[in-house]
Amino acid sequence: MSEADGRFMRLALGLAGRGLGNVWPNPAVGCVIVNGGRIVGRGWTQPGGRPHAERRALDQAGPAARGATAYVTLEPCAHHGKTPPCAEALIAAGVVRVVSALEDPDPRVSGRGHAMLRAAGIAVETGVLAAEARAAQAGFLSRIERGRPWLALKLGASFDGRIALANGESQWITGPQARAQVQALRARFDAVLVGGGTARADDPLLTLRHFKPLRAPVRVVASRRLDLPRGRLAGSLGQAPLWLLHGAEAPGEARAFWAGLGAELIEVAGRDTGRDTGLDPVALLAALGARGLTRVFCEGGGQFAASLMAAGLVDELIGFTAGVVLGGDARPGIGDLGLTRLAEAPRYRLDSLQPIGPDVLARWLRA
Amino acid sequence: MSEADGRFMRLALGLAGRGLGNVWPNPAVGCVIVNGGRIVGRGWTQPGGRPHAERRALDQAGPAARGATAYVTLEPCAHHGKTPPCAEALIAAGVVRVVSALEDPDPRVSGRGHAMLRAAGIAVETGVLAAEARAAQAGFLSRIERGRPWLALKLGASFDGRIALANGESQWITGPQARAQVQALRARFDAVLVGGGTARADDPLLTLRHFKPLRAPVRVVASRRLDLPRGRLAGSLGQAPLWLLHGAEAPGEARAFWAGLGAELIEVAGRDTGRDTGLDPVALLAALGARGLTRVFCEGGGQFAASLMAAGLVDELIGFTAGVVLGGDARPGIGDLGLTRLAEAPRYRLDSLQPIGPDVLARWLRA
Repeated sequence: MSEADGRFMRLALGLAGRGLGNVWPNPAVGCVIVNGGRIVGRGWTQPGGRPHAERRALDQAGPAARGATAYVTLEPCAHHGKTPPCAEALIAAGVVRVVSALEDPDPRVSGRGHAMLRAAGIAVETGVLAAEARAAQAGFLSRIERGRPWLALKLGASFDGRIALANGESQWITGPQARAQVQALRARFDAVLVGGGTARADDPLLTLRHFKPLRAPVRVVASRRLDLPRGRLAGSLGQAPLWLLHGAEAPGEARAFWAGLGAELIEVAGRDTGRDTGLDPVALLAALGARGLTRVFCEGGGQFAASLMAAGLVDELIGFTAGVVLGGDARPGIGDLGLTRLAEAPRYRLDSLQPIGPDVLARWLRA
Repeated sequence: MSEADGRFMRLALGLAGRGLGNVWPNPAVGCVIVNGGRIVGRGWTQPGGRPHAERRALDQAGPAARGATAYVTLEPCAHHGKTPPCAEALIAAGVVRVVSALEDPDPRVSGRGHAMLRAAGIAVETGVLAAEARAAQAGFLSRIERGRPWLALKLGASFDGRIALANGESQWITGPQARAQVQALRARFDAVLVGGGTARADDPLLTLRHFKPLRAPVRVVASRRLDLPRGRLAGSLGQAPLWLLHGAEAPGEARAFWAGLGAELIEVAGRDTGRDTGLDPVALLAALGARGLTRVFCEGGGQFAASLMAAGLVDELIGFTAGVVLGGDARPGIGDLGLTRLAEAPRYRLDSLQPIGPDVLARWLRA
């Protein structure tokens, strides 16, 4: 990898990030077109997943794409969907070299895009900044490779890891800056997920109030019996999609109520671990992956978070920590895990760390 | 305050920090002597509290102190102790200007040092970087003004605020870098303090193993009934002082055993809050202050930490956080506080934040 190749690919990865949260079920791809050392086109996957990054960058480059190098964060597509494949478009535009970060794991592409380019006499180099690209496109890769979305768990907790007093009071532990940051984070995920306990306790809107996203994150509530309050959540169906994951035992009346409002009902298997009864977390995430979600942002509560954690499904921890102490009798951010050996405890490595207002924001990735 | 005054005082404050942990019951003071814009002497309080910072800086300056300015982080002493007062020494050396950060709250000094200097015709300016100096010398100020040492509470916890599994396993949650940092922190405090529960569970040495401090921190164990294991703690009396805080009900046999080993026994009042019985935390810290301690580093356990926290005695939180999740059934870092309103919860403001090995170190000061 030349220094220039790395630099342009890094730029393409930066552009790719702009699509996060609004391109599902598609990957958020970035593309930079360079001719004679000059950037002549830049593009990223557009909201809803179309047009693709390459198409946008080629349109911007126009005739300057002839003889150029295209940097793409993922192998260009080769299959005819609603539009002609990107590999074909790159060939038609006269691009002479394509540098990609990753082969697309999607079986409809997986190597065929690169092969189509090579067959047309284009020089193809792949694997440039592959690790960075895997990290940047982890949501899409997770959906394709693991059949489930990337899952981040957010905690807004006290110094001692508590999310509410014993009596439930939780407004506010973290400051306004952290809460605004949570809204910004929601916009970079495809969906916001909470358990039924949190929905019953808070009847949360789970919408973006500080700004209007390009595409509203899907609101997902997991509630085995669909015994949810019929207040704010029920009154906000026009603002953002609402998916309700429920068990076979959810009563017909509740199903009819929510379906009548326009919520999407998704039945998944239940489970009884002895410690808790609820929806099977593996089945739950598989159902979301099957519907195209690539990045899911879980906001609790503690018991639901513990079930996801115990099943090994939490890829990322996003911790907001406030300088306040609530004590051992306050509510834990993550419920019981029943661990008997430290070596079994899920480990994470620090990804980023920053003060945010009076609080601290730490992001950890599964080690 | 001129730019130069601030710069030299900042330097003096840096020197003052070198005495932390080894000068109690004295303050850790720094002194810089400047003549014609050149630093001619630097000093800080020496281990055990003598010689004072000014004496050291004057000795280093020699004849160059004549006509010089002395920057001191605390008002020079004016009383005859084991050695002549520093104010007298500054006058004798021919210093013409003294810049100090704070008036000494010690009633034996409080303004008399400055007055002695002024009476000798020396220009005195005080209050330069006063806030920084108050922070740097918070331990000594606390002992004089509040009659108790500055109290820092250390927690080495999981992402979700747990310090051990339900079965007690806690080795290791944080990494070796964090554990080494704990040793370095101990050396900057006058004493390390733990509750009886931790002493019974871990029989900790509480000594510095990674390096030899200039003065070993006093090991303090609070145990109402003196029902402590007679293993490592008992076998290490030669390595560092051991003070045992106990209640009136501690049996004579236990008192005699520990006193016979050379431990210092300190009886303080007991207390029953309904939630727990133990030593009265206010009486406990007052006893440590009365014996001259200025900075105390508490390392738990959870219930003891909660009693200090509930009494409003914790000035600083030092949190090491590991990227591991232990769950709500693991042991909390801070025990029950019985809070019923968030507004009553003790608040802290972030002082510093850094990654340390795979962990995070955050320091918070009482807001």
